[in-house]
Amino acid sequence: MAEHSPPATLRFERVALIGIGLINSSLARVLRAEGLAGHIAVCARTHATLDKARALGIADSTTIDPRQVVDGCDLVVLGTPLGAYGAIAEAMAPGLKPGAIVTDVGSVKACVIEDVGPHLPEGVHFVPGHPVAGTEHSGPEAGFAELFRERYCILTPPPGTDPAAVARIEALWRIAGMRVATMSARDHDHVLAVTSHLPHLIAYTIVGTATDLAEHMKLQVIQYSAGGFRDFTRIAASDPVMWRDIFLKNRDAVLEILGRFSEDLAALQRAIRWGEGEILEDRFTRTREIRRGVLAAKQA
Amino acid sequence: MAEHSPPATLRFERVALIGIGLINSSLARVLRAEGLAGHIAVCARTHATLDKARALGIADSTTIDPRQVVDGCDLVVLGTPLGAYGAIAEAMAPGLKPGAIVTDVGSVKACVIEDVGPHLPEGVHFVPGHPVAGTEHSGPEAGFAELFRERYCILTPPPGTDPAAVARIEALWRIAGMRVATMSARDHDHVLAVTSHLPHLIAYTIVGTATDLAEHMKLQVIQYSAGGFRDFTRIAASDPVMWRDIFLKNRDAVLEILGRFSEDLAALQRAIRWGEGEILEDRFTRTREIRRGVLAAKQA
Repeated sequence: MAEHSPPATLRFERVALIGIGLINSSLARVLRAEGLAGHIAVCARTHATLDKARALGIADSTTIDPRQVVDGCDLVVLGTPLGAYGAIAEAMAPGLKPGAIVTDVGSVKACVIEDVGPHLPEGVHFVPGHPVAGTEHSGPEAGFAELFRERYCILTPPPGTDPAAVARIEALWRIAGMRVATMSARDHDHVLAVTSHLPHLIAYTIVGTATDLAEHMKLQVIQYSAGGFRDFTRIAASDPVMWRDIFLKNRDAVLEILGRFSEDLAALQRAIRWGEGEILEDRFTRTREIRRGVLAAKQA
Repeated sequence: MAEHSPPATLRFERVALIGIGLINSSLARVLRAEGLAGHIAVCARTHATLDKARALGIADSTTIDPRQVVDGCDLVVLGTPLGAYGAIAEAMAPGLKPGAIVTDVGSVKACVIEDVGPHLPEGVHFVPGHPVAGTEHSGPEAGFAELFRERYCILTPPPGTDPAAVARIEALWRIAGMRVATMSARDHDHVLAVTSHLPHLIAYTIVGTATDLAEHMKLQVIQYSAGGFRDFTRIAASDPVMWRDIFLKNRDAVLEILGRFSEDLAALQRAIRWGEGEILEDRFTRTREIRRGVLAAKQA
């Protein structure tokens, strides 16, 4: 992992945003606000989504065709669920201009390099990225330019990637307000399995467990959610398709950390069953340290 | 469960607050702001805590003696970790004035009835309660009068409790801004196991799992916590002794819901391992409903 200082400002003549959900629509607002794009071409799966993007003023042109949207673009940003990347890369590849930069905003990185990389023609630069920011809301209306402020963006350029292309993507996210770091795709996927994928899986599970309770208890669960549960419901309201793909694409790292989690949970469960208060108190005391770290890093 | 309409306002001549952490110190601020107590006597385990309470202006008198603090009081509010209730009840019992109301703010209720009830003399009214509100902060400095606003307070008076005593406690929490409901201690403990105790146990576990990772990875876990993890670190920063006692005192209900949770998590784990995307998407879609309920109940 390394942090870099920002290079000079940059402007792209024509930017293609493929997928216009929370992240790409927030990026579009940054491009507009900072005058970073001469033209923003947006591609989505449905015309209904494209209509919204136009109504929001974040698209200069729209199409459902990945091949068409990249035409003449010097920057292409993939922002769909990860499961669609391979087919999109294959479809758009013939339209890519030599020297264009392809980047993405996906939450898993090794799979992106595997699924997208092989389709890209010689002379096109590939800088996979992950702005670690989000809310539980999805769709083009959910975006806002301030989403990225003070958050981290992780770039995972494969060895041999053109440093100038990496620097331009880095500058873009810095202008959006992000701190930028680079690491290997493999490291990224392991860290995010802990900080994001496991928490989401757990939140989805616990809210699902509550959903299965008898109807009269469900009402009470909602009424008394202020005791901790409501934070989980927020996380578990995240986009289902996006998260389905994240778990399928980061399978090994998620299963590994899930194994550790299950062991630790079983140990606490045993301590509760046998009334071993010291084990509980000790464990609950140690976790406060991490919170202090999160606060110190201004990520709370 | 039943909701009641608020009775006329009330005032206590002398209130004893035993334990002066987040909840009782917030209640003290409400008593002060609303002029509900002629005198606030505070009891805590250490003089350091009592000094803080006096400095904050939320104690008219202080003592470390539970027997002394209840002297002449018409209201006694227990607000210590649950494990201390039995000994405190035994110690204070001889000092209780006939007609006094004893209530508490603990997160488990059946154990309170078992641990406190038998010690109380004839003619003292016992109204166990649980204001479902809180933050991850603890101690007398952490309190604030607005903590209770719009949250639910659950009262679990044992059968035969004087209705007038229940009505006075209910009125007190309503003045603090709470919605008040009554239910059996058993129902309370089952609902809270889902909405509060399991979420805390899970949050403590996941943050503990992350704490055990190698040092270099721990730093990254903190930096990239915005992906979901940070919400868990907040919950897992809650008071360790208070939570130790909650798990020990609500053991059966917690183990029961934990069993369901573990089954559900294993099912999702299996779906990830075998690439069963439809199961994941289906599960992730259903959980959005509960979030809508939480938002509709204004508990988010």
